[in-house]
Amino acid sequence: MTSNNTFGRLFQLTTYGESHGPGIGGVVDGCPAGVTLTESVIQAELDQRKPSANEASTPRAETDRVQIQSGVFEEQTTGAPIGFSIPNQDSRPQDYSELKKSYRPGHADYTYAAKYGLRDHRGGGRSSARETACRVAGGAVAKQFLAEKEISAVAYTRKLGGIEAEVISPDRAAELPYFAPDPSVVQLWEKKLSATRKAGDSLGGIVEIQVRGVPAGLGEPVFDKLDARLSQALMSVGAVKGVEVGAGFEAAELTGSRNNDPILKKGFSQNNAGGVLGGISSGQTVVLRAAVKPIPSINKPQRTVNNRGQEVTLQVEGRHDVSAIPRIVPVLKAMTLLTLADMWLLHQSRA
Amino acid sequence: MTSNNTFGRLFQLTTYGESHGPGIGGVVDGCPAGVTLTESVIQAELDQRKPSANEASTPRAETDRVQIQSGVFEEQTTGAPIGFSIPNQDSRPQDYSELKKSYRPGHADYTYAAKYGLRDHRGGGRSSARETACRVAGGAVAKQFLAEKEISAVAYTRKLGGIEAEVISPDRAAELPYFAPDPSVVQLWEKKLSATRKAGDSLGGIVEIQVRGVPAGLGEPVFDKLDARLSQALMSVGAVKGVEVGAGFEAAELTGSRNNDPILKKGFSQNNAGGVLGGISSGQTVVLRAAVKPIPSINKPQRTVNNRGQEVTLQVEGRHDVSAIPRIVPVLKAMTLLTLADMWLLHQSRA
Amino acid sequence: MTSNNTFGRLFQLTTYGESHGPGIGGVVDGCPAGVTLTESVIQAELDQRKPSANEASTPRAETDRVQIQSGVFEEQTTGAPIGFSIPNQDSRPQDYSELKKSYRPGHADYTYAAKYGLRDHRGGGRSSARETACRVAGGAVAKQFLAEKEISAVAYTRKLGGIEAEVISPDRAAELPYFAPDPSVVQLWEKKLSATRKAGDSLGGIVEIQVRGVPAGLGEPVFDKLDARLSQALMSVGAVKGVEVGAGFEAAELTGSRNNDPILKKGFSQNNAGGVLGGISSGQTVVLRAAVKPIPSINKPQRTVNNRGQEVTLQVEGRHDVSAIPRIVPVLKAMTLLTLADMWLLHQSRA
Amino acid sequence: MTSNNTFGRLFQLTTYGESHGPGIGGVVDGCPAGVTLTESVIQAELDQRKPSANEASTPRAETDRVQIQSGVFEEQTTGAPIGFSIPNQDSRPQDYSELKKSYRPGHADYTYAAKYGLRDHRGGGRSSARETACRVAGGAVAKQFLAEKEISAVAYTRKLGGIEAEVISPDRAAELPYFAPDPSVVQLWEKKLSATRKAGDSLGGIVEIQVRGVPAGLGEPVFDKLDARLSQALMSVGAVKGVEVGAGFEAAELTGSRNNDPILKKGFSQNNAGGVLGGISSGQTVVLRAAVKPIPSINKPQRTVNNRGQEVTLQVEGRHDVSAIPRIVPVLKAMTLLTLADMWLLHQSRA
Repeated sequence: MTSNNTFGRLFQLTTYGESHGPGIGGVVDGCPAGVTLTESVIQAELDQRKPSANEASTPRAETDRVQIQSGVFEEQTTGAPIGFSIPNQDSRPQDYSELKKSYRPGHADYTYAAKYGLRDHRGGGRSSARETACRVAGGAVAKQFLAEKEISAVAYTRKLGGIEAEVISPDRAAELPYFAPDPSVVQLWEKKLSATRKAGDSLGGIVEIQVRGVPAGLGEPVFDKLDARLSQALMSVGAVKGVEVGAGFEAAELTGSRNNDPILKKGFSQNNAGGVLGGISSGQTVVLRAAVKPIPSINKPQRTVNNRGQEVTLQVEGRHDVSAIPRIVPVLKAMTLLTLADMWLLHQSRA
Repeated sequence: MTSNNTFGRLFQLTTYGESHGPGIGGVVDGCPAGVTLTESVIQAELDQRKPSANEASTPRAETDRVQIQSGVFEEQTTGAPIGFSIPNQDSRPQDYSELKKSYRPGHADYTYAAKYGLRDHRGGGRSSARETACRVAGGAVAKQFLAEKEISAVAYTRKLGGIEAEVISPDRAAELPYFAPDPSVVQLWEKKLSATRKAGDSLGGIVEIQVRGVPAGLGEPVFDKLDARLSQALMSVGAVKGVEVGAGFEAAELTGSRNNDPILKKGFSQNNAGGVLGGISSGQTVVLRAAVKPIPSINKPQRTVNNRGQEVTLQVEGRHDVSAIPRIVPVLKAMTLLTLADMWLLHQSRA
Repeated sequence: MTSNNTFGRLFQLTTYGESHGPGIGGVVDGCPAGVTLTESVIQAELDQRKPSANEASTPRAETDRVQIQSGVFEEQTTGAPIGFSIPNQDSRPQDYSELKKSYRPGHADYTYAAKYGLRDHRGGGRSSARETACRVAGGAVAKQFLAEKEISAVAYTRKLGGIEAEVISPDRAAELPYFAPDPSVVQLWEKKLSATRKAGDSLGGIVEIQVRGVPAGLGEPVFDKLDARLSQALMSVGAVKGVEVGAGFEAAELTGSRNNDPILKKGFSQNNAGGVLGGISSGQTVVLRAAVKPIPSINKPQRTVNNRGQEVTLQVEGRHDVSAIPRIVPVLKAMTLLTLADMWLLHQSRA
Repeated sequence: MTSNNTFGRLFQLTTYGESHGPGIGGVVDGCPAGVTLTESVIQAELDQRKPSANEASTPRAETDRVQIQSGVFEEQTTGAPIGFSIPNQDSRPQDYSELKKSYRPGHADYTYAAKYGLRDHRGGGRSSARETACRVAGGAVAKQFLAEKEISAVAYTRKLGGIEAEVISPDRAAELPYFAPDPSVVQLWEKKLSATRKAGDSLGGIVEIQVRGVPAGLGEPVFDKLDARLSQALMSVGAVKGVEVGAGFEAAELTGSRNNDPILKKGFSQNNAGGVLGGISSGQTVVLRAAVKPIPSINKPQRTVNNRGQEVTLQVEGRHDVSAIPRIVPVLKAMTLLTLADMWLLHQSRA
């Protein structure tokens, strides 16, 4: 089940924390006993999310250090809940005084105020992308669990600022800037990002995820379909505005004879289904794509209203990331892994 | 929470039933007391899903009649669970003997067998689209509940077989063939469907849904975002392979300055967000699109395997629908309404 | 999870239905595929709940006939939800006109009116014990599932109207009147019931349940303890006012040295724990007791108020059961079995 | 829903942490925005649980200090999850080497080993009563929320070592040793505890809880009855072996005419129901009792087996508490408050 700040029914991640406050963290509940886990394993995933010196992100002295609080004994999970915490550093609430009053377009400022009546305006509060660090930490636990089942995921940038990459070497994407699945696209993206940064604007793109080793049978028919759960998982990440599986929106244009994946003795001969049939994994690679909107914080004047309903022109100061990509890539991978771990346990419960 | 055959956390629909068996039905649990409800209100929604005499569907003597079993007293909901049942008619299990052995490409036959070990092969069993009638019945209850809050939805076909419709009169779509939002597109679609039918093939398309009257504040941040929950809702319908909100995949191509919706005193000046910011409704119309794949049952020989792993050529006999559209349209609307009703109760619980 | 009309997290029972209306029924969701199931298996359990010709119950022409609607194919569960329905017979709403206005003491009339604003007063509506028939039907499915794991339960009356029975032959209790675990107590109970009936009054008692064959390891520590879940299960049955496990309230009087169950090579040497340690089954027989209050419907004038807040004297007419025992016994057994089935799946999910 | 380490459906507490490790903590999710909350408010409840210099507990240098990590801004809840942490102090894993091998009778050592295959033996690991500190912290948030609805609870010791207290001044119990509801019983209990301590043994007792100000209408009929949920809540606390509501087990001995609470214009004239009718609060005080078993750790030789299945005699060294009372009293109060807060939100969601 999904319950606001808890994700999953059996393999569950609960998170807490705002961008400004003592710290963020969470609890992974339901991970079976006996899975190898250390702080450095989680840290390695978190490091993939940190802002690096490229054209998309802003170099900051942000060094998230995760601490495991419980649930691990002699480098193995015990079956008890795995509490983890990541202290906030370098939080300067005074920087955000202007945002206390005005609602940034494209952000959750306005809707949080409408929902809760009051609002922690410091750096976006709970709606800050900082929250996603806990997803990555939780995803690292799922990754360890799934590795024992020989299930693994790769995630990479398929499109950035309208420039599409070919999928040449997806397994090496994590080593290249922007999680590029093709070394030759990096320079094109860099140019685009650089120009956009200079224009004070921002870019979106498309992230693709492949999950390999998923056995046939995962996913519950009807409401808990594997692809339905994955859609929620990806769409729950702030900047995502669309999700597709396999041929996705392209499938809407095909005829049945073209779209159907023939089944041969050695397996399916193509993968328009994206590894999911009737909501259940077919044994093929699960293929997902998420559309990422451009970051709403830009260095251009924008029309908005303040908390007294007056129209104002807002110019967000400071240096901002130009794109949620690449930092969002490990977050989407984490959500995919958390979903798979949950669906694995669900399936096993009745196996 | 979503739990296999139960949808929703507070406004919950549980369904049961296969295409061949005594009947299908379900339970709507959590609908507040005092909502006006009759069998004819549910029946009217069900009738929108029935196969009509057009080029997309096959005329059948299928006349689903819903019976309310409980939870309604003197035409008002009592707060008790609303049980409903729809007897199966005209079920002829003998027609499906060939499918007992072979797995139809693009169907769930193969994955059900892999998951459960055994399989009710009659007409697809639980994986049959027949299951969606119960979603429409449940959606009718949600519709009644939301009507009291002045929330309503319209759904229409945006694209069929690659031919896009303009959105001229979405409110009249339910009266036109194929839920067309523009009368002038009907003939084009008919031609395409007719040609495809003759070719023994099938078509997909795109369905769009608008929800109006949603107040700002619905949706729970983080994992239970309004758009995340809606994505799961739509993707849980069999033929759907992609979901997008507002500008959706298009947003991935825009710059932030173009994508951000400026906020004016009188409201937002555009709606790329699709009515959702940070996972919370903004007060704008919620706009969703679902990509529907072509129906996998076609009148062409297809390569597949049987349950002994041997390669066979399968030719599915009989007359089949050419497209899941238009019958899927009321189903997607129902899932949207069920999600909104659930999010409404969730929001109210802490208001 | 438990959610109003749904019980269980993985092995789930959802029920609907009032005492007067077309029918009652439910859905068992999450039962693994391949479990042997027929209508007659469920019917046999339902028959244990029907009013028989004894001093406790009122002979009525109530013959609940269950119909399986889905989820079973060739006498085996398929993994799909098992819908079942039990038509209501002999419902005469006109008999209840007086109860429309007055709130019966000890019943839920007053609290339902307070909660929902409106109320289906016919025979208690949803608060009628009729609802428990669906629990018994669901429990029958759980029984079949657990039988494959060699887990079984017996339930019997431990005390009735203050007269305690010895536990001589618990396995034969279902064959004796009042589910007596000792043939010699039957006559004493009959006398007591007969006298109480003549006095127009009612009686309560204590039901004991033993679950055998439970392997060590079922139950989730902390909030989902096996005994915590069982407590909720039993207390959710209308007339139950207390629940205890193993030595129960008696344990509060013992010293630790007396209460602790020593562990020998061949197992525990006593069972004060009732088969549960730290919320997890120990491999011993699980022993539970539920305190059942006397039936509130009596043939004596009672002081109460009507729906306009006026004090009235209410004399409930007609013949009433003298005790919820024995009809409650199969209900409590069913709730125990449903809980065990759920905990079994939960445990297996992470095994 | 209850999900292992998460309690509640809408007002949810998730906890983590073992007796030996960096720390324990949790997340309160679903508390509405605008509730006054500070660390000192939570600390005050935690202080009620700390071992004090009396005959029941062992004075230790345990000073739990709670830190709020998130969800509170300017001393008000924001609607975001409230993360809190309590660092472990004074954890000396080396003290527990003997327990690594032998299973303490009456403890969860044996069942944890059976369930998880491996076990964090240090101080009982997750099964340690240390876990309950997080329940008290969560209960403090519920207390603040309910205070705004004018709902409050008192908890006190009703019986200790077989000696029953009269309920003279329940509201002052928190100020007296052992949460005594009658000053005159303190000395009797002290004597009993002292003698038991000298004998190297331990004692159990009964805790009673009253919840006042509960409006009529809380609780969901059928499986989610208010008393069913409260039973699970109390029974989920380690040492509890029985739970009763209102007259409880006593009700099983009464006739209906005696047990039914007459309803007068000014309210009910007695409270055998314990404030709950048909699973819904009636507006009366909710009255609960929990049977607490004697602490299993005693200073006497006990027969048990080790992890190789060999019989051994175990003598647990060190000074132990003589009774879980009084430290368990604030824990049971916290679980009651958490349940009420959850049921309040559930009710409000459909109001």
